[in-house]
Amino acid sequence: MSVPNVIVVGAGGVGVICALSLTTKNLSDVSLVVRSDYNHVEEKGYQIDSCDYGKFDSWRPHHIFRTVEDAASGDKFYDYIIVTTKNIPDGPINSRVENIVKPLLLNNHKLESSRQSNILLIQNGIDIEKSILETFQQSEYNYTMLSGIEIVGSTKIAKGTIHQIGHEKITVGAFQPDDTNAKLAAKKFVEFYYNEGKNDAEYDERVRHSRWNKLIYNAAINTTTALIGLDVPRALQFGVDGKSTEFEIFRPAMKEIIKIAASEGIILDEAFIDIFTDISRNLMFKPSMCVDREKGQLMEVEVILGNPLIIAKKNGVETPVLSGIYFLLVMLQGKLKEANGLIKFDEKTCKIVE
Amino acid sequence: MSVPNVIVVGAGGVGVICALSLTTKNLSDVSLVVRSDYNHVEEKGYQIDSCDYGKFDSWRPHHIFRTVEDAASGDKFYDYIIVTTKNIPDGPINSRVENIVKPLLLNNHKLESSRQSNILLIQNGIDIEKSILETFQQSEYNYTMLSGIEIVGSTKIAKGTIHQIGHEKITVGAFQPDDTNAKLAAKKFVEFYYNEGKNDAEYDERVRHSRWNKLIYNAAINTTTALIGLDVPRALQFGVDGKSTEFEIFRPAMKEIIKIAASEGIILDEAFIDIFTDISRNLMFKPSMCVDREKGQLMEVEVILGNPLIIAKKNGVETPVLSGIYFLLVMLQGKLKEANGLIKFDEKTCKIVE
Repeated sequence: MSVPNVIVVGAGGVGVICALSLTTKNLSDVSLVVRSDYNHVEEKGYQIDSCDYGKFDSWRPHHIFRTVEDAASGDKFYDYIIVTTKNIPDGPINSRVENIVKPLLLNNHKLESSRQSNILLIQNGIDIEKSILETFQQSEYNYTMLSGIEIVGSTKIAKGTIHQIGHEKITVGAFQPDDTNAKLAAKKFVEFYYNEGKNDAEYDERVRHSRWNKLIYNAAINTTTALIGLDVPRALQFGVDGKSTEFEIFRPAMKEIIKIAASEGIILDEAFIDIFTDISRNLMFKPSMCVDREKGQLMEVEVILGNPLIIAKKNGVETPVLSGIYFLLVMLQGKLKEANGLIKFDEKTCKIVE
Repeated sequence: MSVPNVIVVGAGGVGVICALSLTTKNLSDVSLVVRSDYNHVEEKGYQIDSCDYGKFDSWRPHHIFRTVEDAASGDKFYDYIIVTTKNIPDGPINSRVENIVKPLLLNNHKLESSRQSNILLIQNGIDIEKSILETFQQSEYNYTMLSGIEIVGSTKIAKGTIHQIGHEKITVGAFQPDDTNAKLAAKKFVEFYYNEGKNDAEYDERVRHSRWNKLIYNAAINTTTALIGLDVPRALQFGVDGKSTEFEIFRPAMKEIIKIAASEGIILDEAFIDIFTDISRNLMFKPSMCVDREKGQLMEVEVILGNPLIIAKKNGVETPVLSGIYFLLVMLQGKLKEANGLIKFDEKTCKIVE
């Protein structure tokens, strides 16, 4: 049997390392959708400085494409469709995750409707898989829904230039815990992804639990630093007496996430409140939403904070701290949308137009 | 009897119009401390375009000074010491209101210890008068504490250049409601300040009530727009479905202010929640803290929000919305302090150093 075909959509810090891990293991055929850097990468390849894999002057995966449409126009069936873009459901329609996946899944379906596709989202947030499940009938399109959590300190610092300073660890599992095919597909993925002595890759029996766990940090700390535009140690130190950020925002917000998760039957370990606070204190680090905001890009506010709050509301969980942060972040997101031309505000009528 | 000597400290949009009102009435001797614009004003005077007083190519009050120390070095007793600067108790020590007043009050005391000084703060916030009362014994320095609320659309748009587009209305009263001398001094001030048909000036029997009333707007709306850096209509429209800013932030925050005031025995009219919300909806306006933040200047966060929250805590009033805004604003203020060189942050130790 031939090796599985894998396509990675999104060539930022995460996506390129993902493609590099797969290519290094060399047990799959690896395509990468590069978009904005396509010309650079086609001509010169990637310049990579990776703590896991070393230095590369001109690295390429097996195939590169400019768009998902290009990648989906041939006769290649992609067994694994991996999305590593930012997940911004309130952003431009074309970049919503279900629209990214669409041409690839439809082409797979056209080519071999009886062959199983596996969609793997390596993105932040909770319930990001639902828009795909709502858009494409699983029985009709014959796919499993996989969910991945990536921890990696990797940044695209210039066109086609990736700097990885933090070891990669990925955990992958089935979004639907009773989907046997998905579990098998996740386990298989780990087999052709894990490079012993280089990266870490593990099958995750309870990936939704892991997502909630990561959210303890992201919903509380990532969001707050984005709102003010500060790295985490400054956010902590600049509080009243150096304490209010930790005790009035971070810790209560993290507790609220634990309560929301509990209302879904997911019991998180409260020790992570201390763990996340303590690692934050002395590590100069700007979380992803803060970086996005400073770059003037839209933030993942809905998948990181909006979706947990939908669950909180449904289950009657009180979230005074998180809700306050959310309503402020939505305003900031509006400011970013206007700056990016996604909404227009008419100063005469004082209304959003369109 | 000669006319009273008045000195205005702070030559921004408010201070210059204040000096202009006094000079126009011509029943007092008017000094203005100009600081950064001193050379320009000495040479060319003020360029003023005022909706109340018309246009001036080269206007000057009777006297100008570069510093309060200069103003306090002569043999002139200032009957009224008026401060119109921003009130930022967490800012540089020299610009704290008690230190601004100090040389003037001490020189008055030296010149004529039996003559009454009257200190009038025309500034935002609540309890701004306390730092003066705590610093200078009233019996020793023989002064009254007056409190003024100014509503005026006036901005310094360039060096020595003032643009007043909104009619001036000032109300002045005694900070200590049982101080008869202060009440008389406030009433007298109104007499030599009010220019019929031009500005509005009224004696205020309950100035503390009026301050709390203004705080309904400032503590809720001024603060929120500062946090995000948006004018008020955008802040409203950019909420979830165009509603969350109004219903989850502005209105609950205004209600909290009303509750805090009530805990001090000051009963505000809840109708102002509608009034302030409705005037905000269709008026393109950036409140003062938002303007300060965008200019990279420190904000009046302590007098507008910190002081009400001290009272709330003392009286056991719950303030989830205002506290959330406050703890975030304090972080933003820290960011502004660092940018202005007022604090230093060591990225190695992740601590504020001094």
